[in-house]
Amino acid sequence: MRAELVFTGSELLMGYVQNTNAQFLSEELARLGIEVTLHATVGDQWDAMVRVIGEALERSDLVITTGGLGPTTDDITKDAIAHLLRVPMVADQASLAEIRAFFRDKRGREMPTVCERQAMFPAGAVILPNYKGTAPGALIEKDGKVIIILPGPPTEVRSMFRRSVLPYLAGMPGRGDVVRTRVLKLTGIAEYGVQELIKDLGGQGNPGLGYLTVPGEVQIRVTAKHADAATAESMVEDLVSKVLEAVGDYVFGFDDEVLEKSVARMLIDTNLTISAAESCTAGMVAGRLTNIPGSSRYFLGGIVVYSNEMKTSILGVPGETINSHGAVSAETAVAMAKGVRAIIGSDLGLAISGIAGPGGATAEKPLGLVHIALATPRETICRYFRLPGERVGVRVGAVNTALNLVKRYLEGTER
Amino acid sequence: MRAELVFTGSELLMGYVQNTNAQFLSEELARLGIEVTLHATVGDQWDAMVRVIGEALERSDLVITTGGLGPTTDDITKDAIAHLLRVPMVADQASLAEIRAFFRDKRGREMPTVCERQAMFPAGAVILPNYKGTAPGALIEKDGKVIIILPGPPTEVRSMFRRSVLPYLAGMPGRGDVVRTRVLKLTGIAEYGVQELIKDLGGQGNPGLGYLTVPGEVQIRVTAKHADAATAESMVEDLVSKVLEAVGDYVFGFDDEVLEKSVARMLIDTNLTISAAESCTAGMVAGRLTNIPGSSRYFLGGIVVYSNEMKTSILGVPGETINSHGAVSAETAVAMAKGVRAIIGSDLGLAISGIAGPGGATAEKPLGLVHIALATPRETICRYFRLPGERVGVRVGAVNTALNLVKRYLEGTER
Repeated sequence: MRAELVFTGSELLMGYVQNTNAQFLSEELARLGIEVTLHATVGDQWDAMVRVIGEALERSDLVITTGGLGPTTDDITKDAIAHLLRVPMVADQASLAEIRAFFRDKRGREMPTVCERQAMFPAGAVILPNYKGTAPGALIEKDGKVIIILPGPPTEVRSMFRRSVLPYLAGMPGRGDVVRTRVLKLTGIAEYGVQELIKDLGGQGNPGLGYLTVPGEVQIRVTAKHADAATAESMVEDLVSKVLEAVGDYVFGFDDEVLEKSVARMLIDTNLTISAAESCTAGMVAGRLTNIPGSSRYFLGGIVVYSNEMKTSILGVPGETINSHGAVSAETAVAMAKGVRAIIGSDLGLAISGIAGPGGATAEKPLGLVHIALATPRETICRYFRLPGERVGVRVGAVNTALNLVKRYLEGTER
Repeated sequence: MRAELVFTGSELLMGYVQNTNAQFLSEELARLGIEVTLHATVGDQWDAMVRVIGEALERSDLVITTGGLGPTTDDITKDAIAHLLRVPMVADQASLAEIRAFFRDKRGREMPTVCERQAMFPAGAVILPNYKGTAPGALIEKDGKVIIILPGPPTEVRSMFRRSVLPYLAGMPGRGDVVRTRVLKLTGIAEYGVQELIKDLGGQGNPGLGYLTVPGEVQIRVTAKHADAATAESMVEDLVSKVLEAVGDYVFGFDDEVLEKSVARMLIDTNLTISAAESCTAGMVAGRLTNIPGSSRYFLGGIVVYSNEMKTSILGVPGETINSHGAVSAETAVAMAKGVRAIIGSDLGLAISGIAGPGGATAEKPLGLVHIALATPRETICRYFRLPGERVGVRVGAVNTALNLVKRYLEGTER
């Protein structure tokens, strides 16, 4: 089963907005075993739109469009499709009532007349409700082809796809090999280093490995394609196991896992509180730990010590420790962790001191050197890392590494 | 002059990566007055690629491709173009020498034989050097058409476009109306609120207004199109002035301006230091202020007080103040700002206390209520805001608002 995606909207051709629907829909269709053979982005001009959608319909079993469902005269996607299918446009009374209700309840006014267009559809369409906006979508089966009409805004596309389109497509016969994917997130190592360590595990084959670097993080994407979903899944899992054997120490999460959410759940489960003393990350660890609603249950506070004086005056790090070992040292990190734990009165005290650059690096203490200490009721753990990247990469990498140290301590894998 | 963009790579059709080249190239071409009529994304299959690039060449004066310049047999973009132009592939000796040198100097090994493909080009091509990777690009003029072949990785595309392609295209005759754009960044107001305030200034016309919401920020994009660049610029500026009259109080930056960089520059220029006491933003202000290299010149440290006890024990906020006015109040914010300034010994002390949700909101103190205080050597300024959005939006909005308060104070526009 072959599909083409048609994105409509002159704002895409002008570069005003990023087309995030392309990746989302492509990934979802690959999971379903539907091969996407082309993406096309076309403006709000009648001739071009009719040509592009028409050619897609000729070549493919499934065509999905996004955009052009608004109330203005620029919004012509449904009209173009009705024209291609040789069916009239008809009003859907239920949609009309819903759009009227939206304006009355949410905007305190009558529906503008132009908005009637949003309730007009090619005859024979199944209407797809829009729970995140005003423009409903539609699904049309005709002459053995399926065309699915989605709105433009990404939140509306995601919601409508998951609620209405996914169940429909999952029930269609004739789909091909499904794709299964697992993403491993690593920190403390550069992409080139990861590739060196796992190069014998294969490249872009099936199963295959792909890489993506974002600041402070390298992602390994493990994918497999097979007619049978369970087989594709076990192909992925087998390769993931091998990857973990080689680079597992650097892995801090899988897929959409949010590291601070995992840490938060474990802290709440174990009824432990935490505080943070930060130098090079300067509040970023505290900011991440409090991203989670209800974070006051486990996070008590933090101290950002950007000067050596503050490390001594507020955290009680002995001036002697800083003088003999330096601000970026295991000794200072341990004293910071113990200090913040004592001052704030938390069960755990996390401390980070490192060289984020561009200044401050020396031959012995290079850019990316970070000491991380975790003071616990029984002992103080301290580790050092050499993080890759420039200032942003080192800082975000240090936050990921520090949160991962807490996670591993709570799991019992780091002591 | 009409252009089409062809993005090649099966990873795009599988949804493994986001196609960020589409927006970048579209925006750059619009600035040059080159109309982009279609984006097409095609996989690494010969027939499809030849068809899609061939059709683009038939319809358009300019075709730009990205991707498919690597060393593997999947990388067929240049071969497909040579086939379409009916010219042979020939080796470029200078490129070959450079790729050999890259492997010798950067990888400590001989160039793998497969990499010779990266130095092969359609005969007659002008080679475009790649300063960010190994695969050079190319530019070919034939039968009144121009085809530009770029690599896939976005950093390489940006670098090659700016260094080699932009000067070439800027010298081409027959370009049309150029597009000029200015982006205003606002915080403390929702997109719907902005639209209500400036709806009389026009919609998507010429000049036109567009909107984008990201957490803690609404962007207004002001664009104008005209044959004469200076006229387009003054159309933009006129509309920007009117927008500023209506919503200027919410504006914290323009275009690519980085708020913390502006604040950093002003602090360094005025030789002032700053510290931060944070409640709901929990370290995010400190993290932003230290994004800038050399931030230790102006940022001394911060205290994240997530509990009322810490506000009293560490910052010295009187328990009475918290009891009678609440932790989220002007009185507490002022005491926090004065406290952090005194304890850390900075010239300025910035404090933020607010309701980020989802818990903690009441009828009198709703979600999004944020008090921001700035203690200075002479006085303490305090403002409150009702920030839109959920937890993330409120927190990021509070950081933007707080940094903007510092910026306005340093500019002399807020006292």
